[in-house]
Amino acid sequence: MRMVDLIAKKRNGMKLSEAEIKFVIENYMAETIPDYQLSALMMAVYFQGMDQEETAFLTKYMVESGDTIDLSAINGHKVDKHSTGGVGDKTTFIVGPLVAAAGIPVAKMSGRGLGHTGGTIDKLESIPGFKVELTNEQFIENVNKYKLAVVGQTGNLAPADKQLYALRDVTATVNSIPLIASSIMSKKIASGADSIVLDVKTGSGAFMKTLEDSRKLAEEMVTIGKQLKRNTVAIISDMNQPLGYEIGNANEVKEAVKVLQGENVEDLRVLALELAAHMTILAGIYPDYDKAVHELSRLIDNGEALQAFKNFVEAQNGDISVIENLDKLPSAAYHISVKAEAEGYVHEMDAESVGIAAMHLGAGRARKDDKINHGVGITLHKKIADIVKEGDTLATLHTDTNSNDDIIKLIQNAYTIKEQVIQKNTMIYDVIK
Amino acid sequence: MRMVDLIAKKRNGMKLSEAEIKFVIENYMAETIPDYQLSALMMAVYFQGMDQEETAFLTKYMVESGDTIDLSAINGHKVDKHSTGGVGDKTTFIVGPLVAAAGIPVAKMSGRGLGHTGGTIDKLESIPGFKVELTNEQFIENVNKYKLAVVGQTGNLAPADKQLYALRDVTATVNSIPLIASSIMSKKIASGADSIVLDVKTGSGAFMKTLEDSRKLAEEMVTIGKQLKRNTVAIISDMNQPLGYEIGNANEVKEAVKVLQGENVEDLRVLALELAAHMTILAGIYPDYDKAVHELSRLIDNGEALQAFKNFVEAQNGDISVIENLDKLPSAAYHISVKAEAEGYVHEMDAESVGIAAMHLGAGRARKDDKINHGVGITLHKKIADIVKEGDTLATLHTDTNSNDDIIKLIQNAYTIKEQVIQKNTMIYDVIK
Repeated sequence: MRMVDLIAKKRNGMKLSEAEIKFVIENYMAETIPDYQLSALMMAVYFQGMDQEETAFLTKYMVESGDTIDLSAINGHKVDKHSTGGVGDKTTFIVGPLVAAAGIPVAKMSGRGLGHTGGTIDKLESIPGFKVELTNEQFIENVNKYKLAVVGQTGNLAPADKQLYALRDVTATVNSIPLIASSIMSKKIASGADSIVLDVKTGSGAFMKTLEDSRKLAEEMVTIGKQLKRNTVAIISDMNQPLGYEIGNANEVKEAVKVLQGENVEDLRVLALELAAHMTILAGIYPDYDKAVHELSRLIDNGEALQAFKNFVEAQNGDISVIENLDKLPSAAYHISVKAEAEGYVHEMDAESVGIAAMHLGAGRARKDDKINHGVGITLHKKIADIVKEGDTLATLHTDTNSNDDIIKLIQNAYTIKEQVIQKNTMIYDVIK
Repeated sequence: MRMVDLIAKKRNGMKLSEAEIKFVIENYMAETIPDYQLSALMMAVYFQGMDQEETAFLTKYMVESGDTIDLSAINGHKVDKHSTGGVGDKTTFIVGPLVAAAGIPVAKMSGRGLGHTGGTIDKLESIPGFKVELTNEQFIENVNKYKLAVVGQTGNLAPADKQLYALRDVTATVNSIPLIASSIMSKKIASGADSIVLDVKTGSGAFMKTLEDSRKLAEEMVTIGKQLKRNTVAIISDMNQPLGYEIGNANEVKEAVKVLQGENVEDLRVLALELAAHMTILAGIYPDYDKAVHELSRLIDNGEALQAFKNFVEAQNGDISVIENLDKLPSAAYHISVKAEAEGYVHEMDAESVGIAAMHLGAGRARKDDKINHGVGITLHKKIADIVKEGDTLATLHTDTNSNDDIIKLIQNAYTIKEQVIQKNTMIYDVIK
């Protein structure tokens, strides 16, 4: 088998076999296939695509390129949740304790990563004392005892994906749905869960801007999951504006806790219940969607989900008094109102600009070694369909400096305000099983 | 400027500017753009193409990546001829002396290379004593004196093309017409001629199998030539069967000499006159095609073209007695008839198989360091449209071993013989100016 022939085959729109895909990944990892051949193949895939089988085999051999986490010491059906990423997405902090309260063991490995705000771990570290460094034994014990634990990523998961992604990033081959799907799924499958629920975001603030592309990505990932023997469900959720009203680290934790306390934060509670419902159904806890939503709502309203969150935080050395008194979470020195300069209704929000504004405040990392400022962030007061009068506060910046003119401008420009009344966004567009 | 953005631009079907193409080639040569980015760009070009301007700029910067031969010390209008390659193509040995006899200075740099038979230089070396190592001064002096000299390639011509081609060869991106066109033209332009005549082969034995692709390639090259201020004409000639009747080194020289001696070797004389006519018209020697063909035919028939060949060989230390007595050229130990196993008319010939058979005999190089055997080769007795009776000799192998069964089979299988009478092939399909 020669790599040049496989490139030509894909270039000509033909299907690569399992043996051929195995050959590519194994030899790439063994450095007997050089980067320049793989990048040519990736560009051929960009143009010619891969079918469901090819995509599943690619995922399989990326999983097999590294470690697979063994969660067999954890009792029960393990369900993982993954979001394709958006601005203000703090659903993990609601969904995790909620499904834990329902009886699903949640063994979450998370990263820090780059982005508008910190990763799951950064956000949790805004809780004083919280530590993510658990031994493998502690991790397993905590999950078995409290149904929920979060650690930093351990093991060498899907290293082929890591290398391939780095290569795609510099060769303009990121934007291929089968490649995105196999990249996400290889990491999820290597993480050891039995079932997977995917939150595929769609809209201006998402990686996939159109519903059509989001649906394609969701379908590809669900198919990969099935082919590799993981029950997988994907929901497609709105990301035409930030999720909820808070963007940052401490203030995202705060908003999640409010939902756990029973506050009906628009969109956020809906999305969290939707994700949790599919997770509990996959785990066999509830028989159907209506029952699941009903029971999960009850677990929020009766405080059991909040208690699961507290147990988890306490077990990882976090100060749970901040959960009881959210004002004790880190906060910023200045709180600056961003005023509306027009009247009407909010028609559009550029979620990405809001995210970038949060990053400039210090809530996220532009570079790997940037330090997160847990207290800074943005609180939105107006979202799509809201009425705005001139001088109304659109958002509040929580900032540690008093020169924020550029950021204020960025937020103001993120809002499109028009005269006509408009409807609120749909939150859940579709469920792909 | 970032390479990843240029890859994305081309991937999206947009046009690269002159500055962008310059950036790519210069940084690739400076090793600040790695192979893996260039191969991704080449695959994007494979799918999205390049327009005439982009192709001309790519050619220009590949030329500028190395030396350009200065032929200004040679008097007169220098015209170069280039063939895209085929089996049995010995037109250089006819066209060179013919246009020299007409007054065009021919300063030819040639290679050895890989292939079915040797390169121009290997073939010339089948003439005892012939040497291609001339100093630059001798080369210029010989051209000025005898109008014809051939040397091995000197200088570092279009090194960017060399590197790019090597990369394309292993990344399945050779087969792109703008890339093929710019590769050929960069070397021709760097070689310093004022005008260029291209012989673009078409058919089963050519790199371009269809007339449509051959025409596209011809048009692209002519356009590049014009954009870079070289008068360029391309003819499209038949390569559905080997050219002439001889394949090998000594026997190709022999067949060329026969044409110079006035023998009307079918196709070969026609093609040589066609190429020479366009060269002399570009050089301003003859006013039009009819006049050129008439005068050039006269230069063959009156022996002047043959004399030019002798002068050239003698000036490069070759033994011209072999030209007067062609039997003195190197020959093989065995001459084996390949018999027909069917009756009818030759409908098709697989020129490539005939070429490969010649290579297996030792006439060409499969690997760079293989040694050429000047005496071996193949003489065809039947070509397309010829009548064949069972037991007729299709071809004669000139071989130095007596175990040639595989090669005999290869030749027999190269012939497609059917009952119906068919017409001879067209030799010249088109002229692109």
